[in-house]
Amino acid sequence: MSNSLDLVGLRNFSAAPNTFGSKKVTHVEFPALTGLGVGVTLLEYKPNTLNPPHTHPRGSELIFVMAGHLDVGVIDSANKLYAAHLHEGDLFVFPQGLVHFQINMSKEKSVLAISAFGSSNAGTISLPRNIFGSGIEDEVLLQAFKITSAELMKLKAPFMPTM
Amino acid sequence: MSNSLDLVGLRNFSAAPNTFGSKKVTHVEFPALTGLGVGVTLLEYKPNTLNPPHTHPRGSELIFVMAGHLDVGVIDSANKLYAAHLHEGDLFVFPQGLVHFQINMSKEKSVLAISAFGSSNAGTISLPRNIFGSGIEDEVLLQAFKITSAELMKLKAPFMPTM
Amino acid sequence: MSNSLDLVGLRNFSAAPNTFGSKKVTHVEFPALTGLGVGVTLLEYKPNTLNPPHTHPRGSELIFVMAGHLDVGVIDSANKLYAAHLHEGDLFVFPQGLVHFQINMSKEKSVLAISAFGSSNAGTISLPRNIFGSGIEDEVLLQAFKITSAELMKLKAPFMPTM
Amino acid sequence: MSNSLDLVGLRNFSAAPNTFGSKKVTHVEFPALTGLGVGVTLLEYKPNTLNPPHTHPRGSELIFVMAGHLDVGVIDSANKLYAAHLHEGDLFVFPQGLVHFQINMSKEKSVLAISAFGSSNAGTISLPRNIFGSGIEDEVLLQAFKITSAELMKLKAPFMPTM
Amino acid sequence: MSNSLDLVGLRNFSAAPNTFGSKKVTHVEFPALTGLGVGVTLLEYKPNTLNPPHTHPRGSELIFVMAGHLDVGVIDSANKLYAAHLHEGDLFVFPQGLVHFQINMSKEKSVLAISAFGSSNAGTISLPRNIFGSGIEDEVLLQAFKITSAELMKLKAPFMPTM
Amino acid sequence: MSNSLDLVGLRNFSAAPNTFGSKKVTHVEFPALTGLGVGVTLLEYKPNTLNPPHTHPRGSELIFVMAGHLDVGVIDSANKLYAAHLHEGDLFVFPQGLVHFQINMSKEKSVLAISAFGSSNAGTISLPRNIFGSGIEDEVLLQAFKITSAELMKLKAPFMPTM
Repeated sequence: MSNSLDLVGLRNFSAAPNTFGSKKVTHVEFPALTGLGVGVTLLEYKPNTLNPPHTHPRGSELIFVMAGHLDVGVIDSANKLYAAHLHEGDLFVFPQGLVHFQINMSKEKSVLAISAFGSSNAGTISLPRNIFGSGIEDEVLLQAFKITSAELMKLKAPFMPTM
Repeated sequence: MSNSLDLVGLRNFSAAPNTFGSKKVTHVEFPALTGLGVGVTLLEYKPNTLNPPHTHPRGSELIFVMAGHLDVGVIDSANKLYAAHLHEGDLFVFPQGLVHFQINMSKEKSVLAISAFGSSNAGTISLPRNIFGSGIEDEVLLQAFKITSAELMKLKAPFMPTM
Repeated sequence: MSNSLDLVGLRNFSAAPNTFGSKKVTHVEFPALTGLGVGVTLLEYKPNTLNPPHTHPRGSELIFVMAGHLDVGVIDSANKLYAAHLHEGDLFVFPQGLVHFQINMSKEKSVLAISAFGSSNAGTISLPRNIFGSGIEDEVLLQAFKITSAELMKLKAPFMPTM
Repeated sequence: MSNSLDLVGLRNFSAAPNTFGSKKVTHVEFPALTGLGVGVTLLEYKPNTLNPPHTHPRGSELIFVMAGHLDVGVIDSANKLYAAHLHEGDLFVFPQGLVHFQINMSKEKSVLAISAFGSSNAGTISLPRNIFGSGIEDEVLLQAFKITSAELMKLKAPFMPTM
Repeated sequence: MSNSLDLVGLRNFSAAPNTFGSKKVTHVEFPALTGLGVGVTLLEYKPNTLNPPHTHPRGSELIFVMAGHLDVGVIDSANKLYAAHLHEGDLFVFPQGLVHFQINMSKEKSVLAISAFGSSNAGTISLPRNIFGSGIEDEVLLQAFKITSAELMKLKAPFMPTM
Repeated sequence: MSNSLDLVGLRNFSAAPNTFGSKKVTHVEFPALTGLGVGVTLLEYKPNTLNPPHTHPRGSELIFVMAGHLDVGVIDSANKLYAAHLHEGDLFVFPQGLVHFQINMSKEKSVLAISAFGSSNAGTISLPRNIFGSGIEDEVLLQAFKITSAELMKLKAPFMPTM
């Protein structure tokens, strides 16, 4: 009497020890979302971990904290920071395309959160790696960040693709 | 160094005893969502309770089960039912405008869920009350449901506005 | 000098005797409408017939009465009914996703109407059949409509698919 | 029990003798259409009258002939004409922004039609008057149409605003 | 370290002597634009040449004059003309679907301009040819422009397709 | 006979000596663009200057080089760099929300370019300043870029707001 539907579960999701981890549900993982303009990501922040500054080019994000305390921030195009210390049950919004981050400052407790997106494929650009691990010419980065070649080499090291 | 932002919390949300309850976060409750095309609703189903058949006229819904087991169903415009028995960590989607419901069949455990919407104001039309509690002329309902006046009077009774 | 175009006619449309009937023109029937965001439906209501409560999930409807008198109603998400008695030449609007109906109260005269949709594929959900003829579990309907099993069996009877 | 709604009627619409006439229903005439993305226009063509070449900048049009025979045409951006001779009950579509016209070739019978628009404010640009009655500098029109000043003066005469 | 991307150049663009010429960059010429909602056209007006009255059915145009002086005009749907004499460095906007033109009145200097479109495929309808060179029945044009058959024959002559 | 229109000129635009400079035309500077979905920015790169890595959260950009040679790059969400060396007359596209930059490598010649945007208000987020000059907590930046406090202090210095 009922019919089966492509179904996606996040039953066994967990971040690796000592890391921040996330699992996206977009129209790639869940084809039934195609054309529906909604998606979610499940996020776990082990103690003392960070989701580094990033943007979502194709959708706004509304985060809900399910467990733990989470520090979040978003920077607008006038370079103004909006930050908050969220408790379980709190919400915060990251408008489409703006730089934002989340950090679990606790040394003991993990944070579990879920984010709603107004897109079935919002995309993510992780800025440290996008900028320092993508092979942009040194000349560009030296001028952009007003640093020396030695400093740039150090900045790039953690994000260089390995062979 | 950081700036305050309108913030909305769902810290103390809980359904009343023996009921299904929900708390919406739209651009009315959280003005920062205006124009961002995303919203959420937190839902709690006490044991043996139902979110009756309803639709969202302006947005699709992606539900995520945080605790408990939830039975859900959605009916497409060809009157075909798609149903599922969801566990903690499962997701299900209800496309914009389609009739759907959720029921907690457990006699002991509550269910906690959160729904993402691809709209900051998806709206809700609760069908039993919308049809039988809005004052539609009897003639319409008698023909539509092919029932007698006595049967209609019984169907309307629970949904009539009280004075 | 001129070129042929896929063309769709409604020249011979007529509802069956003693029924309400309609003929949709969407991008399925008329592929030239694809991507143009407009569609129409022609409707005939024989005397004393009803277009039962239904919704259009993907478009608003603007109805125009070409002949006869038509009673119409739409219910908003606050369960408020807006109704009108339309004459030939009158218009009424049914916003996207809201429950609405039309009824020809005349015992003698048919009504002819045409509806414009702001979508080339607005869809239709006929609520009595969608709710009572789609195989939703009895438990859901019993709780939703606060009825007995015997009453539910009667409500389902006219809408059960036949074999 | 029911509530009043802004309502717009076209009960008494009729074109003046020997003319083509139309009555638009946009969100200006019918504020309830605001944001709903649909509109209609009622059209009457007395015998031997024309709705001259025009465009709708903000919406596609789907015309339905209610009475009489109507000749219609639309020209695409490759300057290809698509034309048809419509009977009562026929439909034809004019995509957004394309030049089109309708003409009643009958010397005796009027044509009555209704057009659906996928916009509550599609707009109309009547080309003969827009081009020859808006005060565009002669130099532009002379070069554009490759005509003489005397010919241009004749073309402008019927469309010049009177004082 | 860097990757190739489909690239489109306008390096060698130039209008033919004594003509107005243009080169469009839409998602046809530059597939990387697909879905991005932006396009450009490069335009050169040799001395004393005209881009005749035309419309863009699917996008608004923002023109920027790179060299020379350009006279431009746009006519709204109330048949009101907005005109300007542009210098190098000036901008002017032609809203989607409205009739507009540009003319280089100089007898000696060419004009170079570039137009931005809020669409990767705005389309162009050149009105003189669309109206007089597409094979619309004479009866329509005679009534529309209130001219004689002899005058119409002259108007059509420059735009008739040659064999 | 013609009517005035708000007009915006870029006649006297020039970057300051030894700098990259730009002048935006959005619906703020040019209210006639409101709702039209198109905008432009004029850009001048003096010799050896850079438009540092940045994003546009609300629109894609199509750049056209009017004079000089320009090196450009864009990084997708898989951290893949697409770069090109553009000559006068060349075009390049930066999709909405993706990180990109332009640099004039010449020691002698300036570059002049104009960019079309598929939005009348695309916005700009200049990443070095957005990340290092907005007051994000040190803890976040230390973890994100895997640097020491001393290195971070140096990175922040050029972007700190002055009092």
